[in-house]
Amino acid sequence: MKKPTWVIDKERAKRAAAAETVWMFGLHAVRDALLNPARERLQLVVTKNAADKLGDAILKSGLQPEIVDPRKFDSYVPLSPDSVHQGAALEVKPLQWGSVEEVCLSGAGAPLVVLLDRVTDPHNVGAILRSAEVFGARAVIAPLRHSAPETGALAKTASGALERQPYLRVTNLSDAMVELRDMGFVLIGLDGAAEMTLGEKLATTGSRPVAIVLGAEGPGLREKTRETCDALVKIPFPGGFGSLNVSNAAAVALYAAVTRGA
Amino acid sequence: MKKPTWVIDKERAKRAAAAETVWMFGLHAVRDALLNPARERLQLVVTKNAADKLGDAILKSGLQPEIVDPRKFDSYVPLSPDSVHQGAALEVKPLQWGSVEEVCLSGAGAPLVVLLDRVTDPHNVGAILRSAEVFGARAVIAPLRHSAPETGALAKTASGALERQPYLRVTNLSDAMVELRDMGFVLIGLDGAAEMTLGEKLATTGSRPVAIVLGAEGPGLREKTRETCDALVKIPFPGGFGSLNVSNAAAVALYAAVTRGA
Repeated sequence: MKKPTWVIDKERAKRAAAAETVWMFGLHAVRDALLNPARERLQLVVTKNAADKLGDAILKSGLQPEIVDPRKFDSYVPLSPDSVHQGAALEVKPLQWGSVEEVCLSGAGAPLVVLLDRVTDPHNVGAILRSAEVFGARAVIAPLRHSAPETGALAKTASGALERQPYLRVTNLSDAMVELRDMGFVLIGLDGAAEMTLGEKLATTGSRPVAIVLGAEGPGLREKTRETCDALVKIPFPGGFGSLNVSNAAAVALYAAVTRGA
Repeated sequence: MKKPTWVIDKERAKRAAAAETVWMFGLHAVRDALLNPARERLQLVVTKNAADKLGDAILKSGLQPEIVDPRKFDSYVPLSPDSVHQGAALEVKPLQWGSVEEVCLSGAGAPLVVLLDRVTDPHNVGAILRSAEVFGARAVIAPLRHSAPETGALAKTASGALERQPYLRVTNLSDAMVELRDMGFVLIGLDGAAEMTLGEKLATTGSRPVAIVLGAEGPGLREKTRETCDALVKIPFPGGFGSLNVSNAAAVALYAAVTRGA
């Protein structure tokens, strides 16, 4: 009997996910990934100079580095030409953080979560992971499709946070939102056209778990995402002009959530 | 009589400043600069395609564009090779905003100012200009030396704010801080090692004018800058790990200042 198409598709997606690897680059990102015991590492390509600088981390990782000539580095690793790799690149598997429930219900950190609705810029997502870690959030959650994948560029902007801050990719963002609401989270979506301010809404949440929902610059939140939020709020802009970059909006919302009632 | 060396140096610096020009690039940044009547424009280089998209703005600017072949664009304008220019580049003079006193004492917006102590990354400064505009701050002030200059990359990250948000470059940052204090500003420096939180300090400022002082990531505030602040404060980080990117820290501090007492 032939397998139905959907089974074939599912198996193919599973194989693709299993095969998916990422090239980390830059001394900081590579060191962080080398030192993270949860990180599955495949191969390390470094110049002599970078190998010296990463000495301890390489030793701890137990990985055998491939030392290459700096002038030939680019031919060994498939990085985009503008990657500031500093002579260090490490092929890894994406991290497995577990389910939304495992991470958000009982994970480390405060019951505070950031959801990103189709934020595709890796620098923005990297900066948001960094802020989420700093403010002690449990996770950053984004849909599997139309989100910045876990790449070297993202890792570099995240400044180490990618190794420590759960970045969960889910099939369906509004399903994850419903799941969070069932756990007791208040879902607060940021929307420049909202009436209520972020501060006003947070003042009503007491010590309840909070999920901040942010859309991409320009399109903002999708219809389904907006509808699934418990409240839509705006950051008050006295300038009356423009809007914040999404990573700045995330930092402001995290700060406001963490200091509410203070 | 021969001129003394310091006079020659001063005259040379003046000539250099007068000769200084900047290449703006990208459709948004070029359009904003074309539409800004305060902006002194020298030459516009565009592809046919970009000229069509900028039609209105070019007409309003009264500038005669030089239309070039897209394949030869890079040979006409001195941009770094990774500049996403979208076929549009405009040579301009830096904007003249006036003195610290003129802008900060009686300028537009709330009596709220951001000071940057040697923040050299143009993307960070661009993002901070954008946030400063959104939160209605009067100015972003930085030392003339060791700060991100007004460049095309900065303009692009600022997303138009560079044309509207005063970016004042001063010879001496602590002199400018003393000047601001004399005007009634409370000088609040961000420092991860401070005891007091940002919110605690802002609660004591009532409706007084506030200046937020931020240092570069890593080095932080210089000794002289720290000493000149009225208070050093920290953003509370429950994560207990890492620190915010400087543009995120600026957005958080501006938000906290704007919503204090709310």
